[in-house]
Amino acid sequence: MLIQLINPNTSTEMTAVMAASAVTVALPTTKIMPSTPLHAPKSIECALDETIASAALLDLIQEGKQQGVDAHIIACFGDPALDAARELADAPVIGIAEAAFQLASLISHRFGIVTTLSRTLPASEHLLQKYGHKQHCSGVRASDIPVLELENLAPEAYQLLKNECLEAINLDGAEAIVLGCAGMSNLVEKLSQELPVPIIDGVTAAVKLAESLHQLGLRTSKAGHYGKPLQKPFIGRYSHWGV
Amino acid sequence: MLIQLINPNTSTEMTAVMAASAVTVALPTTKIMPSTPLHAPKSIECALDETIASAALLDLIQEGKQQGVDAHIIACFGDPALDAARELADAPVIGIAEAAFQLASLISHRFGIVTTLSRTLPASEHLLQKYGHKQHCSGVRASDIPVLELENLAPEAYQLLKNECLEAINLDGAEAIVLGCAGMSNLVEKLSQELPVPIIDGVTAAVKLAESLHQLGLRTSKAGHYGKPLQKPFIGRYSHWGV
Amino acid sequence: MLIQLINPNTSTEMTAVMAASAVTVALPTTKIMPSTPLHAPKSIECALDETIASAALLDLIQEGKQQGVDAHIIACFGDPALDAARELADAPVIGIAEAAFQLASLISHRFGIVTTLSRTLPASEHLLQKYGHKQHCSGVRASDIPVLELENLAPEAYQLLKNECLEAINLDGAEAIVLGCAGMSNLVEKLSQELPVPIIDGVTAAVKLAESLHQLGLRTSKAGHYGKPLQKPFIGRYSHWGV
Amino acid sequence: MLIQLINPNTSTEMTAVMAASAVTVALPTTKIMPSTPLHAPKSIECALDETIASAALLDLIQEGKQQGVDAHIIACFGDPALDAARELADAPVIGIAEAAFQLASLISHRFGIVTTLSRTLPASEHLLQKYGHKQHCSGVRASDIPVLELENLAPEAYQLLKNECLEAINLDGAEAIVLGCAGMSNLVEKLSQELPVPIIDGVTAAVKLAESLHQLGLRTSKAGHYGKPLQKPFIGRYSHWGV
Amino acid sequence: MLIQLINPNTSTEMTAVMAASAVTVALPTTKIMPSTPLHAPKSIECALDETIASAALLDLIQEGKQQGVDAHIIACFGDPALDAARELADAPVIGIAEAAFQLASLISHRFGIVTTLSRTLPASEHLLQKYGHKQHCSGVRASDIPVLELENLAPEAYQLLKNECLEAINLDGAEAIVLGCAGMSNLVEKLSQELPVPIIDGVTAAVKLAESLHQLGLRTSKAGHYGKPLQKPFIGRYSHWGV
Amino acid sequence: MLIQLINPNTSTEMTAVMAASAVTVALPTTKIMPSTPLHAPKSIECALDETIASAALLDLIQEGKQQGVDAHIIACFGDPALDAARELADAPVIGIAEAAFQLASLISHRFGIVTTLSRTLPASEHLLQKYGHKQHCSGVRASDIPVLELENLAPEAYQLLKNECLEAINLDGAEAIVLGCAGMSNLVEKLSQELPVPIIDGVTAAVKLAESLHQLGLRTSKAGHYGKPLQKPFIGRYSHWGV
Repeated sequence: MLIQLINPNTSTEMTAVMAASAVTVALPTTKIMPSTPLHAPKSIECALDETIASAALLDLIQEGKQQGVDAHIIACFGDPALDAARELADAPVIGIAEAAFQLASLISHRFGIVTTLSRTLPASEHLLQKYGHKQHCSGVRASDIPVLELENLAPEAYQLLKNECLEAINLDGAEAIVLGCAGMSNLVEKLSQELPVPIIDGVTAAVKLAESLHQLGLRTSKAGHYGKPLQKPFIGRYSHWGV
Repeated sequence: MLIQLINPNTSTEMTAVMAASAVTVALPTTKIMPSTPLHAPKSIECALDETIASAALLDLIQEGKQQGVDAHIIACFGDPALDAARELADAPVIGIAEAAFQLASLISHRFGIVTTLSRTLPASEHLLQKYGHKQHCSGVRASDIPVLELENLAPEAYQLLKNECLEAINLDGAEAIVLGCAGMSNLVEKLSQELPVPIIDGVTAAVKLAESLHQLGLRTSKAGHYGKPLQKPFIGRYSHWGV
Repeated sequence: MLIQLINPNTSTEMTAVMAASAVTVALPTTKIMPSTPLHAPKSIECALDETIASAALLDLIQEGKQQGVDAHIIACFGDPALDAARELADAPVIGIAEAAFQLASLISHRFGIVTTLSRTLPASEHLLQKYGHKQHCSGVRASDIPVLELENLAPEAYQLLKNECLEAINLDGAEAIVLGCAGMSNLVEKLSQELPVPIIDGVTAAVKLAESLHQLGLRTSKAGHYGKPLQKPFIGRYSHWGV
Repeated sequence: MLIQLINPNTSTEMTAVMAASAVTVALPTTKIMPSTPLHAPKSIECALDETIASAALLDLIQEGKQQGVDAHIIACFGDPALDAARELADAPVIGIAEAAFQLASLISHRFGIVTTLSRTLPASEHLLQKYGHKQHCSGVRASDIPVLELENLAPEAYQLLKNECLEAINLDGAEAIVLGCAGMSNLVEKLSQELPVPIIDGVTAAVKLAESLHQLGLRTSKAGHYGKPLQKPFIGRYSHWGV
Repeated sequence: MLIQLINPNTSTEMTAVMAASAVTVALPTTKIMPSTPLHAPKSIECALDETIASAALLDLIQEGKQQGVDAHIIACFGDPALDAARELADAPVIGIAEAAFQLASLISHRFGIVTTLSRTLPASEHLLQKYGHKQHCSGVRASDIPVLELENLAPEAYQLLKNECLEAINLDGAEAIVLGCAGMSNLVEKLSQELPVPIIDGVTAAVKLAESLHQLGLRTSKAGHYGKPLQKPFIGRYSHWGV
Repeated sequence: MLIQLINPNTSTEMTAVMAASAVTVALPTTKIMPSTPLHAPKSIECALDETIASAALLDLIQEGKQQGVDAHIIACFGDPALDAARELADAPVIGIAEAAFQLASLISHRFGIVTTLSRTLPASEHLLQKYGHKQHCSGVRASDIPVLELENLAPEAYQLLKNECLEAINLDGAEAIVLGCAGMSNLVEKLSQELPVPIIDGVTAAVKLAESLHQLGLRTSKAGHYGKPLQKPFIGRYSHWGV
């Protein structure tokens, strides 16, 4: 199968990191097609970044659709534009936060989330509410490491991140840790070795869920909320969406 | 004061309708500045429309900000890009759904919502949840009138809409009706005369709330979630947002 | 328009304070009619106080109604007798807690409440639940200053109050502060200057919402829950309510 | 033990009905002291009635306290003034709605409520929420029989009530029926014989809970929310509450 | 009446403790029939213990039924097998956690729970949710005393337990304490004397609720969820359940 | 990998059906080990059945553990004994209801559930609440086909089931259908062809999730709630669990 792995920010280094993680866990028969937007912010750390990135991301979904991918993964922990992408795509679309929450709740009673900047906390809380996993979460903690620093993580920054994980475990009662940024997917192995609980990364989780849906022949329901977008005029820089 | 009234779709007829409604209720000292995007869908009726319109809308917020407006109103019932706009703007930003829900809950125990297409129902339900007014809502009903038909509403379509209002009142127990589209703002007077409960339109509600905040000297808190967006590079068609 | 501003306790000093605040923010065309009960407790700090004050307050609503006021404001943070008052009145009735929560949620993601005595905390929590704003509140804090001390607030008591505001901001993540007592309405200016977040007072918020509803021609729905009370005999000291 | 059974409305016929029901189920060692207010509405069917009755009811609680009763029962399905009464009293105070919900949830997975007028439905829904039993309730139905008609219930009215019970069972899935008015306590036996599910009346339920608490030596906690009311001046017709 | 008091673990010392507590509060006309399983764990401290004990406990319910008991009490704070027991039994079945929560919420605004091992906390939280009392609970605290140590409680262990109660009162705002283990029922008197809030034990609470239901003639509804189990084959060590 | 597929009832025909379904979707490298209890009910259709089956099922988990399986699947829609099994097992344990809800929520905004007997509805509702998917479910419908009839489904019974699916889609707004019984896993293909929405079966969903966790190296967290059961004596027919 062919999975489009979309990094909604423009950092190609980060796309490379997450693609490498995805390839590691993918089945031999799965091909990962990394995708980086031409029109977007360098990183996604606030609602403005996410709003801009959302519009840009739909172009990538459309491209993936034209290339006949079997699944789309939106690899940003805010799961930007997920509903719109599901309307647009024929194949399933998976957000990495939703994927991580699902697998985490299969192997722990309460999981903690460790993310980047404090100002992204409300976004995580909103997703926990939307997906129904608020009651399974022991708390969301920010490491206050900017997204782009993850690319070349300094030892002190790694320590900061690990410390937040330890506080999540020891103070909040987290029984597993969800990493709250696609850019952390290359830290799973090291953190798993150094921490006493399972570490869940959304990128790799989403790859397995995409394969699962594909193998079961399940695609997004086109009856109801995720039905195809209505045809209508769009103007200006979005005229390619219109009729 | 100067209020920027943003129609997030590209229908200038609809902008004119809502601007007229706004002017009717504004104080003599309030000036309404209507705003229509150059890059957007003709109407907003699904998540894809809303995602595209959200990015376009932020340009208008930025323009309003540069012109020194005292408040921004986002006049689409999905309250698109509200969080991002609040990050960006210095002045308060008000969504018409939030505004309508607030005033409706001051004058009724349970209000009903009558909106356009069935597929927008989940969006209304999401906003009721987000703003905390789910328990005050007797139900959301769709008239299945497309947004653009509202501009020149045929008598039969008006009757359809009125019938849904009556069912909301008689079957669901709605004690007031919130109109679920900015394009319905010119129907308030007629519906108010013909129906036994108060009719609330979000555009006019938002104008009064904008004036209220302005007169109290209240502006969006810049401490926390609505703090200014972080400076960073944006590329491609969004490069004007970057540094 | 004519707004009846009801202080449900018998402290005329407090009535004067809130009336002054109301006048400051009211439109030139708005007249504030302060109202103090003849039969009530000196202050409202527990459920017994509130229950007694509620019965007394309805007489004032009835008086205001006979004088043809355009709106009634119940200026006690417990919003006592709000439902009964809405049944009784033809004009809109606004509680200051509901008003403050609404405006606070327009300008902040999470607001904190700083109130008087610890034992009033459950009352605030009940109102947050009733109005749907529990999820928008970062916490309720008591300064443990008795209501009547607010009239002539000693510098140390002001400092106590300000400290609670600071803890709400720094420890709880409050992005705005709602003042939890009508008797604090004269502190808004000073606190706004000294604190880094917006300060919302319910009395002034309610004045603007009352004007908003009036200018939109919106009155309490008489269909359903807020319909006129049924005619029936009342005896003893309440015989004036009966037929 | 001595139980004060308070009818918060002025109908002595209704007081007699509920006292007879209470006596039937009370232990031989329990004495029922019926109490009817001197200052109150003839029946309680809306928020105004309840607000007035609440103030009057506290005088009866105070009287019962002076006579050394071992428990107070508030026998109106809106549980009026319950929090204030618990502050005031030393002995436990039990509302009949809370009592009925508790016993009903011990013997059924979902119970239905059949009450008097439609306009009291929101009050029942509020209590279900307050006490946490919303999820155990299959629905609240109004028979639209006025409270005072219950005293001499015409055969047609009884049939109406029974029909609502049957609809609750057959349409809503009620596995038990809670009677939503103290004035229905004399119908339990007949309805129990004619309906296939248990019938729960709040008056008799409250008597047993009052005896239970008494025999366990449990009284209202005076630490926290139900602590004694603060001493302060009251004026006018409420001066007897002051210092 | 005859109450079957079931200790779902095999510690006969604990059965004796709870039976003694039950006898102390029972009416003279109530006979307590203690019941201990032949096939079960020595104590119940995790989900595995509870799952095994649940199956064993149903045999005891069946025995009690054959002996014509008027009520069954499941005296383990996890309320194991409660739904199955209600299906099986004709007489009412009461769990001690549900009983304790009900009486605690009649005499306090917020109650705290002090239980045995930390790993039982999620079970208590699940029951608070199931019964609707989550909002009435100030917190659940573990003393980390193993269940079987309660039988001969060392002075230091008692002090540990009392300290948790004090922290629940002073830090969490508990206005009453629910003891989270049937094996603590003999500590009520001592703790009540030494602590400033009411202490509620589920065993004695359940005895009074069982008597209450019996005296009101209320039995588990057999319409719906608690209807008799369907007849079907069972094999192996459970063949006695089959047809 | 080796997956233990546990049918918690004693119908070997049903075990065969679900094993066949599992094998169809499993990867070539996955081996399915079907497991049927020696001590259990013939089918699971009420709380008593489930309670007995839960105890029996743990023996199978223990067997699977001793044989070194890489995952355990509990293939009954009530997810019986899931928490206890997770304590006991080293490998992940997946319930088919949880698995089906997760995949359904990835491909639809609202899914419906069609199950066997009406009396199992509360069990499904409880699981929706526990797993957080209540808000994603458009409703649970019973076909009132007994579990064992599924083995040789008569054409009329199939039609009954299909009709409930159609009502879920057309009346409730279900955008996907979750089949509420492991015994329905062989109907997915036929129903998928005849119905306009995706059909999700928990058995096959669980197989893919088990493979996903295995390939990611994720196992149940042993820190906290799912830690190993405490060692202690068990007696009688459960003595093999003790020390």
